[in-house]
Amino acid sequence: MVVPRLIERKRDGGVLSVDEWRDLIHAYSIGEVPDYQMAAMAMAVFFRGLAPQELSALTDAMLASGDRLHFEDDPRPRVDKHSTGGVGDKTSLLLAPMLAACGVLVPMMSGRGLGHTGGTLDKLEAIPGFNTGLSLRDAETQVRTLGLAMIGQTAEIAPADGKLYALRDVTATVESIPLISASIMSKKLAEGLNGLVLDVKIGSGAFLPEPERALELAKTMIGLGDARGCPTVALITAMDRPLGVACGNALEVGEAIAGLRGEGPADLMTVTYALGVEMLLLAGIDRDAASARRRLEEAVRDGSALKAFASMVAAQGGDVATIDDPRRLPRAPIQHEVRAPATGIVARVEPRALGRAIIDLGGGRRQVADAVLPDVGLEVSAKPGQHVRQGDVLAVVHARTASDADAAVAAVLGAISIGDAVSDVLPLIAWRVTAAGATPYGGC
Amino acid sequence: MVVPRLIERKRDGGVLSVDEWRDLIHAYSIGEVPDYQMAAMAMAVFFRGLAPQELSALTDAMLASGDRLHFEDDPRPRVDKHSTGGVGDKTSLLLAPMLAACGVLVPMMSGRGLGHTGGTLDKLEAIPGFNTGLSLRDAETQVRTLGLAMIGQTAEIAPADGKLYALRDVTATVESIPLISASIMSKKLAEGLNGLVLDVKIGSGAFLPEPERALELAKTMIGLGDARGCPTVALITAMDRPLGVACGNALEVGEAIAGLRGEGPADLMTVTYALGVEMLLLAGIDRDAASARRRLEEAVRDGSALKAFASMVAAQGGDVATIDDPRRLPRAPIQHEVRAPATGIVARVEPRALGRAIIDLGGGRRQVADAVLPDVGLEVSAKPGQHVRQGDVLAVVHARTASDADAAVAAVLGAISIGDAVSDVLPLIAWRVTAAGATPYGGC
Repeated sequence: MVVPRLIERKRDGGVLSVDEWRDLIHAYSIGEVPDYQMAAMAMAVFFRGLAPQELSALTDAMLASGDRLHFEDDPRPRVDKHSTGGVGDKTSLLLAPMLAACGVLVPMMSGRGLGHTGGTLDKLEAIPGFNTGLSLRDAETQVRTLGLAMIGQTAEIAPADGKLYALRDVTATVESIPLISASIMSKKLAEGLNGLVLDVKIGSGAFLPEPERALELAKTMIGLGDARGCPTVALITAMDRPLGVACGNALEVGEAIAGLRGEGPADLMTVTYALGVEMLLLAGIDRDAASARRRLEEAVRDGSALKAFASMVAAQGGDVATIDDPRRLPRAPIQHEVRAPATGIVARVEPRALGRAIIDLGGGRRQVADAVLPDVGLEVSAKPGQHVRQGDVLAVVHARTASDADAAVAAVLGAISIGDAVSDVLPLIAWRVTAAGATPYGGC
Repeated sequence: MVVPRLIERKRDGGVLSVDEWRDLIHAYSIGEVPDYQMAAMAMAVFFRGLAPQELSALTDAMLASGDRLHFEDDPRPRVDKHSTGGVGDKTSLLLAPMLAACGVLVPMMSGRGLGHTGGTLDKLEAIPGFNTGLSLRDAETQVRTLGLAMIGQTAEIAPADGKLYALRDVTATVESIPLISASIMSKKLAEGLNGLVLDVKIGSGAFLPEPERALELAKTMIGLGDARGCPTVALITAMDRPLGVACGNALEVGEAIAGLRGEGPADLMTVTYALGVEMLLLAGIDRDAASARRRLEEAVRDGSALKAFASMVAAQGGDVATIDDPRRLPRAPIQHEVRAPATGIVARVEPRALGRAIIDLGGGRRQVADAVLPDVGLEVSAKPGQHVRQGDVLAVVHARTASDADAAVAAVLGAISIGDAVSDVLPLIAWRVTAAGATPYGGC
């Protein structure tokens, strides 16, 4: 293997063999191929893409670089979901316990927030004591016992992906659909699933705002999952405004608990149920969407979903009292209402600007190594299309200091525009995507 | 300066400011920007190119990273030439002494061979004792005293370029016209010249075989030189066959000495004189090509060019006796004639295959760190278009071992095809290029 020749071939639009990708990723993961050669390769892939067999080989090589969860001897279905991320997207916190309550094992590995998007691990860690750092073996045991575990990507899982992702982050090679797909799927496939649901966001606050690219990403990941015994379905959902009201770590945990009590915001619950239905269908628990939906609603109504959440929080060291009384969650010292400066129709609620305001409050990360505050954030009740009168509350800022609050109020006012009419708003769920193609979402 | 954002901007087709390039190259040269970020940037530049002001900024930044030769107080003109490299191209060995004999100072910094192309330093070092490792100050003194010095790129000259070139070599980012141009010109501009002649090769054995790309490279370098007080002219010359007969280090020195005695092969002398004429015109020694040509011919005829070469060899520690008697140059133990297998017309003499055969004989480098043998090589007398009869000598292989010789004979037979007609042969000198544009070469 002469690495510069491999880079050159990819650079010039050629294809590497399965063996070449395997050897390259292996050599990279053990330090025999230096970062500078992999950085050049990643940039060449950014421009040239990967042929289907190359994408498979890269994914398999990263998967093979580490350990995985093992449930082969357990007859119960294992299903997870993955979101490409957004502002206010706390569906994972609802779905894992809802599905566990329905008899599905959910071994969920999540990430941290970066840039304007939040991360599930940061949200969970807003629950005092909650430990996301379980070993794979401990996570397996908990999933078998309680039906769910929510953990971080350990060094045991796809270490080659961990190394490559860190490199891509500092070499401007993140936004490559094949590299994103291989990275996500190498981790998800390590969970030992029999089904995976993808929530691929579109709109101004999404990682890939354009529907075409989001659909391409969805199809790419579906192809990888389906070919590896992990049937995969994607919903394309809106991130041109936040999902739900709460945006920020502890605030989102509070909203998730409300949702598990049947009191969540309508948009959040619509997306959550839609994703949950797909998960139940993949799990083989239900044969049609309507019965799956009823099953999920029942798990909320009878308290079993909330109970599953509480059992996980307890098992992972978190303060269970916060579930009965979410006021015990970390709460910022300052709450400051943001009021409508004029009467009119909410035209735009810009998630990217809101996400940056949360970073400025200390609730998000600019750099991977940044710490995040659990308590700060925004409650953004304004939704595009909503009629507001001057002085109505659009949002509440949760801040550590008065000056932080002032800056966030200004940012929120900049992110929310009020006019005569609503501009184009994306459908909350636009498409359902399977290997057979994308169809407009019909609900259930 | 946030390096990933700079890489991202270039990746997406944007432009970095002059300050950004200066800061980036400075930070890279002192190790504050790691190789992996510069590798990703180089690959992004490979795909996106550089705007003119970026190319200028990069060149200046690399030039500014090191020292340079100083002749500001010397009224004599300083002119150099640069070749993009080929097989059998020993014109530098003739031109430096010819020009010095005409009153032009020639402070020539050259490179080593890599891949199928030879390097001037390797050829010079085939002269026993010849030292190419002069310091800049010693080189300056020698140029002032003798009119010429031929040295390697020292660590003092454009160290940022040295570091970036080494990185590009292992990350498949060499073949980028702006990066090549900035690399060459940052070194040539450090020579303190008032004129530079470029010999840009085209054809199958050239670094950039296609005329369009060679012209683009020539125009790019001319723009950089002209804008910095170093008027630059390029000739586009043929490398679809070797230049001259001798190919290999000591063999080429021998042919250069023959040329300085007025006994060089016609094609070699045509290109040498053409380049020399341009150098004299840039130096302001002559006003028209015909008188420049006569001056160069006279320097050969009266022995002053050969004397300048001898004085340089002596000053740089080389064995001067080799100049009076080139048989004292290193000579391989085995000479093996390659004879025409059929009667016909030489259709093709493929320089790339011949260059690889020289590598296999030990006379060239696969890797930068390889050692080269001075004595091995090929004398290829066959030229495209030549009528040959079965059994005529096409070439002579100079080898260390019989098995090496056998392999080289087979390679030479593969590189020379004999048929009914000559295939397309490039004109020896196709274009003359200045800032005003490219014109078909008219000779002198």
